Amino acid sequence: MSERLYIFDTTLRDGEQSPGASMTRDEKIRIAKQLEKLGVDIIEAGFAAASPGDADAIRAIAETVKDSTICSLARANERDIRAAGEAIRPANRGRIHTFIATSPIHMEKKLRMQPDAVVEAAVAAVKLAREYTDDVEFSAEDALRSEPDFLCRIFEAVIKAGARTINVPDTVGYAVPYLTTAFFRQLIEGTPNSDQVIWSAHCHNDLGMAVANSLAAVQGGARQVECTINGLGERAGNAALEEIVMAVRTRRDVFDLETRIDTTQIVPSSKLVSSITGYPVQPNKAVVGANAFAHESGIHQDGVLKHRETYEIMSAESVGWTQNKLILGKLSGRNAFRSRLQELNLLPSSEEALNNAFVCFKALADKKREIFDEDLFALFGKDSGTASENIQLVALKVTSETGTAPKATVTLRRDGIELAGEAIGAGPVDATFKAIESILQSQADLQLYSVNAITSGTDSQGEVTVRLHKAERVVNGQGADIDILIASAKAYLSALNHLAANQERAHPQL
Amino acid sequence: MSERLYIFDTTLRDGEQSPGASMTRDEKIRIAKQLEKLGVDIIEAGFAAASPGDADAIRAIAETVKDSTICSLARANERDIRAAGEAIRPANRGRIHTFIATSPIHMEKKLRMQPDAVVEAAVAAVKLAREYTDDVEFSAEDALRSEPDFLCRIFEAVIKAGARTINVPDTVGYAVPYLTTAFFRQLIEGTPNSDQVIWSAHCHNDLGMAVANSLAAVQGGARQVECTINGLGERAGNAALEEIVMAVRTRRDVFDLETRIDTTQIVPSSKLVSSITGYPVQPNKAVVGANAFAHESGIHQDGVLKHRETYEIMSAESVGWTQNKLILGKLSGRNAFRSRLQELNLLPSSEEALNNAFVCFKALADKKREIFDEDLFALFGKDSGTASENIQLVALKVTSETGTAPKATVTLRRDGIELAGEAIGAGPVDATFKAIESILQSQADLQLYSVNAITSGTDSQGEVTVRLHKAERVVNGQGADIDILIASAKAYLSALNHLAANQERAHPQL
Repeated sequence: MSERLYIFDTTLRDGEQSPGASMTRDEKIRIAKQLEKLGVDIIEAGFAAASPGDADAIRAIAETVKDSTICSLARANERDIRAAGEAIRPANRGRIHTFIATSPIHMEKKLRMQPDAVVEAAVAAVKLAREYTDDVEFSAEDALRSEPDFLCRIFEAVIKAGARTINVPDTVGYAVPYLTTAFFRQLIEGTPNSDQVIWSAHCHNDLGMAVANSLAAVQGGARQVECTINGLGERAGNAALEEIVMAVRTRRDVFDLETRIDTTQIVPSSKLVSSITGYPVQPNKAVVGANAFAHESGIHQDGVLKHRETYEIMSAESVGWTQNKLILGKLSGRNAFRSRLQELNLLPSSEEALNNAFVCFKALADKKREIFDEDLFALFGKDSGTASENIQLVALKVTSETGTAPKATVTLRRDGIELAGEAIGAGPVDATFKAIESILQSQADLQLYSVNAITSGTDSQGEVTVRLHKAERVVNGQGADIDILIASAKAYLSALNHLAANQERAHPQL
Repeated sequence: MSERLYIFDTTLRDGEQSPGASMTRDEKIRIAKQLEKLGVDIIEAGFAAASPGDADAIRAIAETVKDSTICSLARANERDIRAAGEAIRPANRGRIHTFIATSPIHMEKKLRMQPDAVVEAAVAAVKLAREYTDDVEFSAEDALRSEPDFLCRIFEAVIKAGARTINVPDTVGYAVPYLTTAFFRQLIEGTPNSDQVIWSAHCHNDLGMAVANSLAAVQGGARQVECTINGLGERAGNAALEEIVMAVRTRRDVFDLETRIDTTQIVPSSKLVSSITGYPVQPNKAVVGANAFAHESGIHQDGVLKHRETYEIMSAESVGWTQNKLILGKLSGRNAFRSRLQELNLLPSSEEALNNAFVCFKALADKKREIFDEDLFALFGKDSGTASENIQLVALKVTSETGTAPKATVTLRRDGIELAGEAIGAGPVDATFKAIESILQSQADLQLYSVNAITSGTDSQGEVTVRLHKAERVVNGQGADIDILIASAKAYLSALNHLAANQERAHPQL
């Protein structure tokens, strides 16, 4: 039997640190449940010490998700470790992941600590963490730019203190694969008792090599990789889970390792994360991009598709792409709706939620002839009636004509009270946002506005992402509707709701 | 002095094969000129035998671009080689790049040829190509899945026949870096006279490792890499030029190679290609993504940006990110406009074109308080009045109100004649497209609709991409306007214009 490669997903921690990708508690729980279904071994659910909201979200995930280990990040200090330890308490299996910087530049400029003091802090942190759980991971921040001898020394000390996993992050995305393999070999050989722990890689993609470096680390002895769905993460992001898993699977001849991942859940996971964070996936992204599989692109080139295996090393179906087939229409009944939701793993937990969803489905089917799977994902992709939505769109009227200024009239409901406003703008979207601002006066800056059609066809739904910036905080909001202006208004309101809910917090770097 | 690494850009050939990315002759010339400015050594300008239009575009680029070698792809047959040879004739330095498949699966299933016949065809192709130019490149399609002994045999034969560059493509994106290094070493050692040619890598990104594999090939002895801007290309795309160049530059300690690339032209090249092809760049894309550099994201995290070097291995400025600073407004004069265009390398060649652009600029400044560099790129990013645009938007009126069906009234000009139509639709964009279809009746399918705001702020311009599909052909159209509905109408018409201009042609795979 092949050896096991552990998949550690940090979409909810390192991924969430992308500008505007911060998520509500409910959104985090939805992603965590999908990661559990995907078969992720360890879910890094957040950084408990960042804020009470973060700690609460980790706790809620630890209560909900039972098949994956739930992990919280913690700096190497008492307050962080205790916050992490409390947050993971409800988990079936809980892990504390503590870290401290080990590169000369970070120790000197950021920590302002001597190397001896860094080792001491690491050991103390691991010992304290062991009071909460047996499963303790230690990371040497900026390890790829650290002295190997110093790393071996600190790793020996933390293994002795009780660490079970040793993570070697390429914090700045600086590594080159063949050197990464050599570096892992050097560390594993040079660290006493290295066989008592699992070695882990955590790579960033600044030079486009995060996946290759992660796999190079595996060649060098790592048996855990830290990654995110869609390669989400600050700057150029983290290593993409889907690429690592499919590389190991497709090139079993090279790696001879097994993961616990159900690859058919890869595309649904990608879509969920993209929809919640508002981060689009570019069409030419490996595995999860819309063009990743030739026969999905709508082009049928003579002589190419006759022999699919001549150009395809994996099948679209194996990663969860399904035919975007017509499934429901105006005349579909409640049973057909329910059974399709079940097939797509979208079935809500309560009858009431199902009834609400059916009403929305009927309203959509009224406007749109054919309902595709993607439409159903969109129907469930948004904050479907969570309590945090305290501002709702009631009505919108927009007129736009070349040569005159577009005008929007909007009615909102806030805490049960209807409020109306109107404005003219440079375009109909601008007029809509200005009409909303005439009522709410948030004074947030619009940083990003994007739209993607969810399905093809002129009557497809538009999924709008709006990124707002106010007082050092950045949030995304999404809205989907068959009418792009209504979708825009919903997205703007969703972002304002996030802005109201979002707390200030610390963002660690790994 | 460091050895030279040659950058071979195939955005205009392999990149153009992405669904919907096919470009007009004028668009190809604009990209080729930018690639010349970027310092690309070899521009693969197309596949001359694909269609007369492709051959014509290559010839036009060969006439225009003088600092880069201009290359045409050709299958290993007489007709293709002669078409390529004729097309590159006007070039200062012209190259013919001929290829044939060498993997057992491709020889058997696609070519239906015996290995001996494949060698014979390759030798004949190279010899014929040498009648047109001294600079002949030979590629073994699907090399990474071919027998090394057979590769050495065919490479020896084509070197003897006069090939100067030997390209080893990973056609299906299957390679793993450390094996790629070993494979190149094996081929270079096993091929007699291997020191008389330049070895080249051409990697696809299906497992997310195209860049790492290209650099691994360089470690194994390759001195040319074939790549595209933004990693554009079929499926998951090709190796990204910007990542390869920045990896070699940032890790000079590892590679010790020089390229001729002016890295400050990387971001302008990325934006131009994205704008012309309609392929968005995701925010967390390395080097050219909007979030690639932390301090561009609008977030100022305490303690991180104090010591930029602790987290940044290259600077945003070094790859051509500029502060998106306010540069022009309503009161800016013609001179300010001209001098900014000059700084941005956007200055049109004729006074008449400059005058037209200034009129558009004034119209925009009338609606939008602040004009950013990005707005100017958008102003010049579109088909600015090329002759191929035979359908133009004259007027558009849209009304949209919750509870009623949106209605659009549109007036177009085709060949000087004004035509009007109206329609109701599921949303305002749907109504607009249906109103256009009520006039033109193209019956094309809408495959993709997306919008990106070009600058931030509620009065930013929207850049709309529309992908249409009709009779086995897929085209993209773009439109930019401060009014998203007008931008949508322009994009739809642009796609229809492309559909009218686009010729049927063969798409080779490499």
